[in-house]
Amino acid sequence: MYASSSRSAALPRGLQAYAPPLARLIESFQALPGIGAKTAQRLAFHVLKQPDYQVEGFSKALLEAKHTIVECGVCFNWATTTPCELCAQPNRSPDRLGIVAYPEDVFALERSGEFPYRYHVLHGLISPLDGLGPSDLRIAPLIERCRQLVAAEEPLKEVVLAISPSIEGDTTSLYITQLLKPLGLNVSRIAFGLPVGGELDYADQLTIARALAGRQSV
Amino acid sequence: MYASSSRSAALPRGLQAYAPPLARLIESFQALPGIGAKTAQRLAFHVLKQPDYQVEGFSKALLEAKHTIVECGVCFNWATTTPCELCAQPNRSPDRLGIVAYPEDVFALERSGEFPYRYHVLHGLISPLDGLGPSDLRIAPLIERCRQLVAAEEPLKEVVLAISPSIEGDTTSLYITQLLKPLGLNVSRIAFGLPVGGELDYADQLTIARALAGRQSV
Repeated sequence: MYASSSRSAALPRGLQAYAPPLARLIESFQALPGIGAKTAQRLAFHVLKQPDYQVEGFSKALLEAKHTIVECGVCFNWATTTPCELCAQPNRSPDRLGIVAYPEDVFALERSGEFPYRYHVLHGLISPLDGLGPSDLRIAPLIERCRQLVAAEEPLKEVVLAISPSIEGDTTSLYITQLLKPLGLNVSRIAFGLPVGGELDYADQLTIARALAGRQSV
Repeated sequence: MYASSSRSAALPRGLQAYAPPLARLIESFQALPGIGAKTAQRLAFHVLKQPDYQVEGFSKALLEAKHTIVECGVCFNWATTTPCELCAQPNRSPDRLGIVAYPEDVFALERSGEFPYRYHVLHGLISPLDGLGPSDLRIAPLIERCRQLVAAEEPLKEVVLAISPSIEGDTTSLYITQLLKPLGLNVSRIAFGLPVGGELDYADQLTIARALAGRQSV
């Protein structure tokens, strides 16, 4: 119904039925991963029903997050400062270092409360199919960081690869292991197997294979 | 890891592991319907990877949509002007009026290109379970509008209820029909049955029941 408006001419086909400000909002939602045309429309229409302060808060949160969140220059996690709050915490033991693929993995480990050490975020995994090689990840700075840490007064002793089991995860773990071993570091990888509360009967074949391969004497 | 920061004290539990600007963005996404904690995190992290101009566009689109989209005073559809562009179009025939539950339904009918008439948006359906009665919908203005339209020079003759088949939809349709019939209007409801391309074998019981009840002689 806005087909005659020159302003909506730039809008993608299908969105021209909407008033331009609404079409642009739907388009913004649709640019997010996993949000299709229908969901984008539903979210945009919901926003119109939200109170003003909430929409203004959302708008501000987008800008603020985008403008203030940077990659920590030490661990490459997302943070507001560099070195980040986590890297700067003095009570973290320096003898272990956790390697993760994505920032969300740091948060997952932190939530567990079981890893009082520091991290290094690779920002991806080696995946030739997606055109991602070692140089696209934060692997070079990791090696350099480890080289310095093993020579420190309180030296780094072990690197824990907290990387998911997949072809890409296994490839990346192997690649990093081969680079870190020559530095005299112990390299370990988190265990894979049956999740706590999981039923053997419902576990998939690969998980059972990993659980069997990783069995430990009792 | 930001537990000691006084700023993050107001954040919901579970979001305190994130830097406050990131936590606020996750929270904003989580306020949307159908977006859980995991999805909100994934969307927020995706935003951090989007180019600046895209995030700024999103932020602006939120404010712009919220501040410029209003309910048209005539048809109650969402629009930037009142009367809206659709109500103002001179080439729409005045002898029929489409009644829909939600603004998205107007856009669905417009996309079909099969309804060159004007609309009235109820903004909901009668649903006692959700505490929604006739007075919560735009029913009173509809009756008043119809009263004026039947007396116009080119009078309104038929009201088409384009309302989905459900208990709420049927109740609302019945309620409106009883109010509009005394004005001398023909009231019709769109047909329900097997969708085009649908297989009888895969149709649910209620759809088949509606399709049988609505059968027409050939």
